[in-house]
Amino acid sequence: MKGKFITFEGGEGSGKSTQLRLLAEYLENNYQIPCVQTKEPGGTDVGIEIRRLLVEGDKDKMDAIAEALMYYADRRIHLTKKIWPALEGGKWVLSDRFADSTMAYQYYGYNKRVDKKILDGFYDLVVGEGRGPDLTLIFDIDPEIGLARSRAKAGQMEFAELRHESRELEFHTNLRKGYIEIAKENPNRYIVLDANKTIEELHEEVVKVIKERLEL
Amino acid sequence: MKGKFITFEGGEGSGKSTQLRLLAEYLENNYQIPCVQTKEPGGTDVGIEIRRLLVEGDKDKMDAIAEALMYYADRRIHLTKKIWPALEGGKWVLSDRFADSTMAYQYYGYNKRVDKKILDGFYDLVVGEGRGPDLTLIFDIDPEIGLARSRAKAGQMEFAELRHESRELEFHTNLRKGYIEIAKENPNRYIVLDANKTIEELHEEVVKVIKERLEL
Repeated sequence: MKGKFITFEGGEGSGKSTQLRLLAEYLENNYQIPCVQTKEPGGTDVGIEIRRLLVEGDKDKMDAIAEALMYYADRRIHLTKKIWPALEGGKWVLSDRFADSTMAYQYYGYNKRVDKKILDGFYDLVVGEGRGPDLTLIFDIDPEIGLARSRAKAGQMEFAELRHESRELEFHTNLRKGYIEIAKENPNRYIVLDANKTIEELHEEVVKVIKERLEL
Repeated sequence: MKGKFITFEGGEGSGKSTQLRLLAEYLENNYQIPCVQTKEPGGTDVGIEIRRLLVEGDKDKMDAIAEALMYYADRRIHLTKKIWPALEGGKWVLSDRFADSTMAYQYYGYNKRVDKKILDGFYDLVVGEGRGPDLTLIFDIDPEIGLARSRAKAGQMEFAELRHESRELEFHTNLRKGYIEIAKENPNRYIVLDANKTIEELHEEVVKVIKERLEL
């Protein structure tokens, strides 16, 4: 793979989507690196329809196992149709959420309703060895602050994707702890950033990390 | 589980959907058994949307691994929201396709593009031990005859679900052999029926099998 694959992770309202856009602009303007900005779920045409099934409607319309299968189906289509072809073509791919979101939400958030081994098995099947992210940025924020931001934003949206936001605060606290656990397991691939900072401060930190870790 | 769970399997145009309806009517009229007639993919509201993604459009829009994940997501929702509650309530569930379709299409039809162990793993995860079908009827037909029937029927439909029918004849021949293999592995659960017979002859045979196997 010629390009680099960077994923942006964190709870609701952590500001990761804004940071993704700012980094893509920075890489394109300062290094002439062509960047593909994408997201999960819903990075492809089929994925947009899968996303709609996952983020809209009642939170109990499917159980955690069905959700995990749907997220990994979306991920497989995303990788085979968009991410891998872009990386092969020398582009950098910046994705708003990837496999760590499934682990954080389904395993940690739901308090281990889906076995970790099952999710690891899905990862091996769908992503395979050595074809995952080069770097993952985790945007860490107090869930009460993040949820307030996320709900304020949803009020301005045409379609409210609030299926996850409607869960209990405990879910989001577990989620936050989960991301920290995930980062600890592989410090070479992950970096945890304090998302309480201003957009500008956080962007500067992201740029610094990218330069160091990916040797720009 | 108080009720019985019977699945109907076979290639395109094998007449299994007609036989399912006739059996449900027979059981209701002659034994006052309440029957739930359902199908995969698309046995639930969410499933109908998953089905649309799977059966419409270009045959290369997703690979075999993505397809298997989507079919098992649909199956999980189908089991948890419809099949298991009906069986617990004493109803019989008759499903037009179930897990054997995924094995027949993704493993045998595609000439082993998805490893059998992977599909067995999905089955264990989603269905679990002892919560699968009590009896599976496989409707065996020459694919050339079946496809001709299926295409003639599609010509009368408002939306043509021809994603599978558009594949090569070899695919359908592999599929047929696959079903026979599956049946051999567990003769207690499976029975292969000759679907070249007339609707009436086949219905009589189905009734005979049900009486014998499920001790009616």
